[in-house]
Amino acid sequence: MKKLLILSLTIILFSACGESTSKKDYKDKSLSIDERVDALLPLMSIEEKVAQMRIFHANIGTKPDKDGNLVLSKRVIKKLKLGIAGIKNPGEHIDPVTAAKMNNELQKYIIENNRWGIPALFVTESYNGVDAEGCTLFGRPMTSAASFNPELVQRQWDVVGKEARLRGMHMCHSPEADVVRDPRFGRMSEAFGEDTYLVTQMVKSAVKGVQGDYKGLGAGTHIGAVAKHFAGYGQVLGGSNFAAIEISERTLIDEIYPPFEAAVKEAKTLGIMASHGDLNGVASHGNKELLTGVLRDQWGFEGYVVSDSNDIARLFYFMKVAESPEAAAQMGLEAGIDIDLYAEDSYSYLPKMVKDNPELEKLIDRSVRRVLRTKFILGLFDNPYIDLEETKKGVRSDSSLKLARESDLESVILLKNEENTLPLNKNKSTRVALLGPLLKKNTKEMFESAVGNSNIKFIAEKGFTLTNEKGGAPELLPRNPKAIAKLVNIAKKSDVVVLFLGGDKFTAKEAYFSNSTLGDRATIDPVGPQDELVEKITALGKKVIVVLKHRRTLSINTIAAKADAILDTWDLSEFGDESTARIIFGEVSPSGKCPVTIPRSIGQLPYHYSMKEINYKKEYLFLGKGPLYPFGHGLSYGKFDYTNINVSNSEITPNTEITASVTVTNSGKVKAKEVVQMYIKDEIGSVTRPDKELKGFEKIELAPGESKTVSFTITPKMLEFTGKSMEKVLEAGDYTVKIGTSSKEYIETKFKLKK
Amino acid sequence: MKKLLILSLTIILFSACGESTSKKDYKDKSLSIDERVDALLPLMSIEEKVAQMRIFHANIGTKPDKDGNLVLSKRVIKKLKLGIAGIKNPGEHIDPVTAAKMNNELQKYIIENNRWGIPALFVTESYNGVDAEGCTLFGRPMTSAASFNPELVQRQWDVVGKEARLRGMHMCHSPEADVVRDPRFGRMSEAFGEDTYLVTQMVKSAVKGVQGDYKGLGAGTHIGAVAKHFAGYGQVLGGSNFAAIEISERTLIDEIYPPFEAAVKEAKTLGIMASHGDLNGVASHGNKELLTGVLRDQWGFEGYVVSDSNDIARLFYFMKVAESPEAAAQMGLEAGIDIDLYAEDSYSYLPKMVKDNPELEKLIDRSVRRVLRTKFILGLFDNPYIDLEETKKGVRSDSSLKLARESDLESVILLKNEENTLPLNKNKSTRVALLGPLLKKNTKEMFESAVGNSNIKFIAEKGFTLTNEKGGAPELLPRNPKAIAKLVNIAKKSDVVVLFLGGDKFTAKEAYFSNSTLGDRATIDPVGPQDELVEKITALGKKVIVVLKHRRTLSINTIAAKADAILDTWDLSEFGDESTARIIFGEVSPSGKCPVTIPRSIGQLPYHYSMKEINYKKEYLFLGKGPLYPFGHGLSYGKFDYTNINVSNSEITPNTEITASVTVTNSGKVKAKEVVQMYIKDEIGSVTRPDKELKGFEKIELAPGESKTVSFTITPKMLEFTGKSMEKVLEAGDYTVKIGTSSKEYIETKFKLKK
Repeated sequence: MKKLLILSLTIILFSACGESTSKKDYKDKSLSIDERVDALLPLMSIEEKVAQMRIFHANIGTKPDKDGNLVLSKRVIKKLKLGIAGIKNPGEHIDPVTAAKMNNELQKYIIENNRWGIPALFVTESYNGVDAEGCTLFGRPMTSAASFNPELVQRQWDVVGKEARLRGMHMCHSPEADVVRDPRFGRMSEAFGEDTYLVTQMVKSAVKGVQGDYKGLGAGTHIGAVAKHFAGYGQVLGGSNFAAIEISERTLIDEIYPPFEAAVKEAKTLGIMASHGDLNGVASHGNKELLTGVLRDQWGFEGYVVSDSNDIARLFYFMKVAESPEAAAQMGLEAGIDIDLYAEDSYSYLPKMVKDNPELEKLIDRSVRRVLRTKFILGLFDNPYIDLEETKKGVRSDSSLKLARESDLESVILLKNEENTLPLNKNKSTRVALLGPLLKKNTKEMFESAVGNSNIKFIAEKGFTLTNEKGGAPELLPRNPKAIAKLVNIAKKSDVVVLFLGGDKFTAKEAYFSNSTLGDRATIDPVGPQDELVEKITALGKKVIVVLKHRRTLSINTIAAKADAILDTWDLSEFGDESTARIIFGEVSPSGKCPVTIPRSIGQLPYHYSMKEINYKKEYLFLGKGPLYPFGHGLSYGKFDYTNINVSNSEITPNTEITASVTVTNSGKVKAKEVVQMYIKDEIGSVTRPDKELKGFEKIELAPGESKTVSFTITPKMLEFTGKSMEKVLEAGDYTVKIGTSSKEYIETKFKLKK
Repeated sequence: MKKLLILSLTIILFSACGESTSKKDYKDKSLSIDERVDALLPLMSIEEKVAQMRIFHANIGTKPDKDGNLVLSKRVIKKLKLGIAGIKNPGEHIDPVTAAKMNNELQKYIIENNRWGIPALFVTESYNGVDAEGCTLFGRPMTSAASFNPELVQRQWDVVGKEARLRGMHMCHSPEADVVRDPRFGRMSEAFGEDTYLVTQMVKSAVKGVQGDYKGLGAGTHIGAVAKHFAGYGQVLGGSNFAAIEISERTLIDEIYPPFEAAVKEAKTLGIMASHGDLNGVASHGNKELLTGVLRDQWGFEGYVVSDSNDIARLFYFMKVAESPEAAAQMGLEAGIDIDLYAEDSYSYLPKMVKDNPELEKLIDRSVRRVLRTKFILGLFDNPYIDLEETKKGVRSDSSLKLARESDLESVILLKNEENTLPLNKNKSTRVALLGPLLKKNTKEMFESAVGNSNIKFIAEKGFTLTNEKGGAPELLPRNPKAIAKLVNIAKKSDVVVLFLGGDKFTAKEAYFSNSTLGDRATIDPVGPQDELVEKITALGKKVIVVLKHRRTLSINTIAAKADAILDTWDLSEFGDESTARIIFGEVSPSGKCPVTIPRSIGQLPYHYSMKEINYKKEYLFLGKGPLYPFGHGLSYGKFDYTNINVSNSEITPNTEITASVTVTNSGKVKAKEVVQMYIKDEIGSVTRPDKELKGFEKIELAPGESKTVSFTITPKMLEFTGKSMEKVLEAGDYTVKIGTSSKEYIETKFKLKK
């Protein structure tokens, strides 16, 4: 019976193939996407195929003139005759409507000037909103991760997807699915934190959001995601961009791959971007086992893999794993990279190379098929243009801007709150000094708008900046005693001081190679005289609230010891200071939680909460115990009591699930949100096991006195890990489930897995 | 013909087996070792066998009384009836002759009180001399590694082996074969450095030395080595003892295994010790792939594997990879651990466990065979006692003490020597102040003895200590302004200041779990007010020489910037200050080289000279470029010019070798030694390749004006690495050979590998 079925299927497939290549028309909308791709591909010349494997940057010649009309360079005109896979950032510096108009023109030009009328993908980046003029600016991914609210993150990325599509974009090189565990790395805030589970939830939300839950792609309302950087990029050695990566196979499978796997299998991301550097010696852009073995053979990924900027050519120039640019192109192609981002001397050699090695055309066809498929999924053959009326209405809509504020309010982390320093009473007459290097020009205005008619008087003074912010090679500015004295004098005349501290945009950024483009650091101590400022201000005996703004984890030892209250805001939306003010004055209780461990010193690294239990048994000489603040930590204006932890069954089997529940009561005086976190610890394993692992969380809101039972399903799948033989195993034995307010504060109970 | 031969051999083997198990007598010296083991093993009860798999510490009850006579506790008397694999450190606190006498008694008691008269192994440690009263004290391994003189290291360990055997010892749990790349780790100075090749040479020398080139074992003049800790212990995460270890498979094979492989295959070490912690998730004491697969199946190791202290039981208690102490015992046994060090509740369960699982006896026999074999190799069945007359003559002989001085003189590293500050002229009338926290009581005396009749006047003042050295939980002492002022005042009255700086024995040591036993650190900056002292003293405008004494790499930024000269002495022999003085006054030119990279900051880690080229392409924001001092760096009073680099053939093939040579000329004014270093760089590889790798070095001595051609053989084996498919590969292409005075200063030429 089985045999017969296979036989008949084979016949059908054969006949389908026969038909599609000979008679079907790729323009026929009634055909399936695969049929349309099958119909188009054989028509294309090798040069046209390879053009579908390259993305160039708009800045090489697709600029708008001053009225927003498209101007093409000669170089681009020549290129576009063959068609193109995509163009990065067309119209990024112009407003959304003008950009959409120009992109319509550009798309039209492309369609009309290549033989088969193949449209192009217009590609953007979008980690905190579409990276283009005039779009809604949200908090960075690390900031929104602190919300521990995937639903909110999905809504945020839904806005991103819509605004991008309305500009005429089709794909974004986002989100980052990297588990980031090294705060020296200048890009850490582009990722969603140190924890595999948290990152996985957030990446799923981001991909689903930006793709309109996949349905938005064909509907023309959303854009395709490109999850990056596959794989291990969050742990470049020394936190140094472009450096080598060393992660053992088991850690890769259990801790690094899951966000990518979820992006592929659950969220159906259209694209994946490979990582700079290498992974255990194998250059990521030449890693067939990773890009084809894991991604496609294991996970069934059907989208395209795009290189990071110039990284295929870099297999020769930089990684030195290929003997020539041509060899690099072949290596990338064979590994499974479908699109070459930017390089002028890599996939461009493929047409020539095919003449010597006709076998390559099969691999080229494989890649082109994936790119064309993406364009059909996005509806670009049938519906390539944007309705400018929609753009006018849809970008920076009131609801989007409201959402940016909502996200901020859920993302601010109250690290410390001695003697309920916060919230401040806005009905009490108070002189509040807003001081310090991270103060923005409009901070005072935002604070005033947040308190409305009240008895609060603000005075704002930045005092000093941390770096020479003019660009060029950034330098730390020397201590300015007069500036510090001025801030101290203002503080003296105030009742409460809010210090805006942290790091500026130069102290943590994506790092390149020249002095003016460095962005990784060897220390995570706050730069400049910030600690001195804290010491002098706190010595005055006034209440001191520190608002931290930063793009990398900072070992804020002095601030943690001296400040009365600390609000960790990472890098909020364009309305960040307003949201911070609303929290300071108690309009909303903070509910953000640390998406990373905050260490006392860079010397504690690697240091995340889910390391092997054996890593925490011993401390360092002359250093305080544990981290400054643990993963998952975040205080509230409410007071949450955790009681009655229970499991529905003290035994779980490979075929059953159980439920763990806890009662959370807000015994405080204000309504507040809380992130209830469930960690599981495998007490004994055949390999050394994490101290605990986040396996569930839920954000709830409780009125004063209100109680709620929060339940989490525990599935056998959650208890799996990669065993000694490198296969996933599920082991009988004792487990502990810990439910609480952070990775350090919880109540717990046990259950057994029985096989 | 071949078939016939095999057949006849089989017959011979069969008949030999038949005889040995039935008729042969293990006391018959004319039999081979294997025959004797075969004869003895079947006679033993399971309890007697398991007793041969345990080592206990002498402190549980084999103490000498005040006259050095053996006193056994009841507990020990009971134990010894079954025999014992070995005893750790018997007589460690008494002088060599009394110890040898007591150990003879102890051995006699053991032999006469177990049924088969099986002698015990007496085991010591010996990283800088036998760890026992009255033996010659050499510099630590990191110190002697700085000599870059394997022949000298072999002579040093030869003395160790002899002195240990003369005390009645038979094995030492040394040397460390760990490649150590994390200066936070408190034990780093027990290892031979960061470089695989350097460590390999030194470990080979140590094992050969201590074993008397193997011949000394049976001759009764030397002891067996136990190379440790297999594998990866030099890279515990966070530099934290007992922590997990993550090293990718390729790095393990190419960089971590080679010193162990050489210890086994080339130096024929009798023992291997497993590592604390895990390796990529698999507990090292339960790692069959490592302890049996790599060690025995791949390398043919025939000695025994011993656990680290209590580590088999710890598979249950600490590592949590076994469900019970019995399961831990089975895991250790199956993985291939032959001897359980110290644990009272681990292999002790084996006799009971065999009743339920008779298959285990095969594994027990396998281990006991290895232990008995070791005892036969050491001649203990035939010749178990020490001739006390030999002990009297042999320990701390003049030649051994001279060797300790010789080793020192080759190990001191001249890091910096501005304007030829060093050497000082001992004929010139000079007031020299010897100051600082690392000054020893007898430093002044040693300096005086070194200059003999001269015009040098010394004044010595320690000023302050770094920690409360009384023991208990060590604390950093607060800055003492008076003590610093006193040192500055003394300096003012001197012509030259020698500052003794670095770290004391509490700031870097093997770390355990309680506050009083911590030894790993999260920073490598010099502790206490040492930088302040340097700044105040150098501000006086006198010549300032810093002598660094330390047991971990220190990021000596201030010292490097301010001192006129820096002598890095790590931790020299008991004659260290005398040797340092002789170098300061120019009797000998320094010739030590950095066995590790000296970083500017702990935040640069991991940071060794042989990382992938891509790791060095980008710097950190606000930090100086590169390391403070590179691997292999070390200045001289001579001046070495490198010219005429040549390869004997510009092509090498898989079956040929070539020679690289260079001319080194001492254009300086004094006779001096120099370590000529050869690095090879594989320009393009199928996997990302190290920036360069040390593949040869030679220490030469040149008179002023003298030239020497130094040649190194380059073999195809040197160019092998683990390729993409995890097999060793040899790849055609371009290589560069760099020969010079450090990993940063060299001349170079190219050659090709042709296949």
